[in-house]
Amino acid sequence: MEIRTATDADWQQIWPIFEATVRAGETYAYDPDLTSADAQALWMAQAPRCTVVAEVDGVVLGTATMGANRPGRGAHMGTASFMVAPLARGRGVGRALGSWVVAWHRDHGYRGIVFNAVVETNTAAVALWESLGFTVIGTVPGAFEHPEHGYVGLHVMHLPLA
Amino acid sequence: MEIRTATDADWQQIWPIFEATVRAGETYAYDPDLTSADAQALWMAQAPRCTVVAEVDGVVLGTATMGANRPGRGAHMGTASFMVAPLARGRGVGRALGSWVVAWHRDHGYRGIVFNAVVETNTAAVALWESLGFTVIGTVPGAFEHPEHGYVGLHVMHLPLA
Repeated sequence: MEIRTATDADWQQIWPIFEATVRAGETYAYDPDLTSADAQALWMAQAPRCTVVAEVDGVVLGTATMGANRPGRGAHMGTASFMVAPLARGRGVGRALGSWVVAWHRDHGYRGIVFNAVVETNTAAVALWESLGFTVIGTVPGAFEHPEHGYVGLHVMHLPLA
Repeated sequence: MEIRTATDADWQQIWPIFEATVRAGETYAYDPDLTSADAQALWMAQAPRCTVVAEVDGVVLGTATMGANRPGRGAHMGTASFMVAPLARGRGVGRALGSWVVAWHRDHGYRGIVFNAVVETNTAAVALWESLGFTVIGTVPGAFEHPEHGYVGLHVMHLPLA
């Protein structure tokens, strides 16, 4: 598996992953009516932000986008979002992307990483981030409307790097 | 003191408050290079979001902007930001705006309000929100670079409404 910076040409493989993830409705609070162009503008970052893909033999299995969590006096703290193709689950794609993202933030001098909205029922993601050193520092109760579980909490997770 | 929906004509009075607040650097992580037009685009909301001013005799003493904290499956939780003119501090402007914002969210059926980034050294704001029923549900350590205190935490504060 190779992780590399995403190019515009990758969007045709990223969009089906994005669309499937938002349609499933279990992990992200994106507007469900986003067009491909809207989603591309949101996901494909310009420097100093960064978007990457994880691929095997030219097939994109997952993607992550990362950068400062806030502008100005909050720009020393990073954040990231991740999506893995439904058919590629359980193959370590999320872990590989997560490790890459942590290294990117460390290399770029960020003082930490915060995930602002990890759906608490997404236990695989929570366990993965915890295994990378993140901790849940708080949970906004009922902040996410899950298609099966109803109103569930959104964890704020944090990893210090300085 | 009257609290009413802000109009474009109010921006000439809101911008000095915005500029002074960001320049002081103690409470918000906005880009310090924002122009008046950039700030206007950020602060002056379109429906279903809402921006208000608190005024006395035609003088704007403070402002708040509010709406859904996230799109899609997070849109039932609201959020808001507040600014009070430096010369109007201690006159109850923040409290009046805060109470108005809570009522607005209740009237519009939100299930709660979350403040994503309350600077922990802004103890007047923390105490005010707590007096309105908010609680700190977590603090991102060192997430805000304060001009005097260095890296300080950002509280996530929450008020349930349902």
